[in-house]
Amino acid sequence: MSQKSILTGDRPTGPLHLGHFVGSLKNRVALQHEYKTFVLIADGQALTDNFEDPKRVRDNIVEVVLDYLAVGIDPTISTIVLQTAVSEIQELAFFLANMTTVGRLSRNPTLKAEIQQRGFGDTIPAGFFFYPISQAADITAFRADLVPVGEDQKPMIELTNEIVDRFNRIYNSTALKRCEALIPPVGRLPGTDGKEKMSKSLGNAIFLGDSEKELKKKVQNMFTDPKHLRVEDPGTVEGNPVFTYLQIFDPDQTSLRDMEDHYRRGGLGDGVVKKRLEGVLIDILKPIREGRERFAADRGEILNIIRHGTNKGREVAAQVLADVKNAIGISII
Amino acid sequence: MSQKSILTGDRPTGPLHLGHFVGSLKNRVALQHEYKTFVLIADGQALTDNFEDPKRVRDNIVEVVLDYLAVGIDPTISTIVLQTAVSEIQELAFFLANMTTVGRLSRNPTLKAEIQQRGFGDTIPAGFFFYPISQAADITAFRADLVPVGEDQKPMIELTNEIVDRFNRIYNSTALKRCEALIPPVGRLPGTDGKEKMSKSLGNAIFLGDSEKELKKKVQNMFTDPKHLRVEDPGTVEGNPVFTYLQIFDPDQTSLRDMEDHYRRGGLGDGVVKKRLEGVLIDILKPIREGRERFAADRGEILNIIRHGTNKGREVAAQVLADVKNAIGISII
Repeated sequence: MSQKSILTGDRPTGPLHLGHFVGSLKNRVALQHEYKTFVLIADGQALTDNFEDPKRVRDNIVEVVLDYLAVGIDPTISTIVLQTAVSEIQELAFFLANMTTVGRLSRNPTLKAEIQQRGFGDTIPAGFFFYPISQAADITAFRADLVPVGEDQKPMIELTNEIVDRFNRIYNSTALKRCEALIPPVGRLPGTDGKEKMSKSLGNAIFLGDSEKELKKKVQNMFTDPKHLRVEDPGTVEGNPVFTYLQIFDPDQTSLRDMEDHYRRGGLGDGVVKKRLEGVLIDILKPIREGRERFAADRGEILNIIRHGTNKGREVAAQVLADVKNAIGISII
Repeated sequence: MSQKSILTGDRPTGPLHLGHFVGSLKNRVALQHEYKTFVLIADGQALTDNFEDPKRVRDNIVEVVLDYLAVGIDPTISTIVLQTAVSEIQELAFFLANMTTVGRLSRNPTLKAEIQQRGFGDTIPAGFFFYPISQAADITAFRADLVPVGEDQKPMIELTNEIVDRFNRIYNSTALKRCEALIPPVGRLPGTDGKEKMSKSLGNAIFLGDSEKELKKKVQNMFTDPKHLRVEDPGTVEGNPVFTYLQIFDPDQTSLRDMEDHYRRGGLGDGVVKKRLEGVLIDILKPIREGRERFAADRGEILNIIRHGTNKGREVAAQVLADVKNAIGISII
């Protein structure tokens, strides 16, 4: 049996942060040894809701690749592909678009939520509305067996499989491969403000490239238990993001349990807990930041890595597209 | 000033008929000497509502080209392009999709009418809903100044220009060219049953490739004035498709006026008028049918003509796509 494939990736709309690190990057670094991994920089998808600010997308392509390399994605075993440089994906999307309906897109829970978040109302850009089809093309173009996504993205995987099944049935073909969602073991990292999700746009993110100074400042300003006013007051650990982060990142979970008990009893100030988190995060982020700086020194090499991966990915996508056109029987010249 | 360009073409869903001949083909043959002409065989667009019957689309590509050559479209001056063989069109459509909204597509009168005709209801294939954007890509990919279309297609040209204007404004660019609808001088040819439109699906069409026997039979069965029961009855010329056809095709319009007067007075049987039309149509269709047969004898040559035109068209489309990607600034590798 041949090695299974994974498609993963990011929309290059900003540098990556600790939320990405926990939710997907760490996971990818581990999975790349087990699976054939394609990491797609979805610049075309990012444009569908950033088309008035293409510079944001363009500038973040290299930033995101720096984050990848710094956390340990190895371009000699993972294939880093730039979406708009693979025309086969757009061509594939054109044919896949016939396999679903406007009604099904409108009712897709993920798309509905995203449209609402962006406040598009009746002025949903057609490209944005169409992006789930484009994403189905991303997944099928690389013959992905597994797609690591959050729970909220599962309807997108279901839509992709509906499209795959319909295509293979109508054209009596095996050109397209079904895929499975791979829900990561660690859930969402809350923001430094305690809000459910760490996000650049919410201003509650610690970036992988943050300097030590920025990191310290962000940890100092973190939300804790708002009722824990004086050191002697009992404090709450649950929902307190400083403890949540420690639970995720601290290598010494045994002494952390003791600290949690102390905090609950009272007599432990937020400053002490934050200091511990600061140390833990410095240990994690320092090598990443240094790696980032090392790779950033040679931009030409970064572009070469993207070029190389894109060419490699393109070969796979071109074969899938050829199979798809063959199945439809549309190519007569 | 450089020569202006025209984009025209057909969805290859059936052989072309007299309605196409009058409404567009004759016009194209004349215009090809004056304008740089691209004739697009829109197989991809045809698939958007024939995706369950791709054979129909595939088989009609060559049929439609035979019709083109037989009526006098000269592949040494007109460029015959196969849509799905130009990936640049699909790529371009991907970027143009961000320039319009789901709301604008939904309200487009042409698209609304077509969706209703096809009885799609809530199950509009996404590819079909998206086709006006794909068509805007067809038009702009070939830098068309003029697009010969029927009155009912004008909203499509307006949508294309909206997309062009928005793109050029957002990206401060001249990558995309505005176009104009070129409404043909002769309106729609009615069907042999007197219905407003000649159409394969209505079964009221005389095809360019019909044999003399088929032609005669179709003319014999044509709808006339239903109140003109006996030869001596006065007949009505207006709305009588036999006379409409004669008014369009008969080279001797003077003697036709006499015949019309006679028919109105009474004393002229339908059979005589139909006999005249039969002769007129035989004169027009015989050289076309013979040309068709001549060209059909060498299928390899037809494929070469399509290949040659597609390659030529692709060069233009590739330049436009490069300009578009440059304007967005999306291509970093």
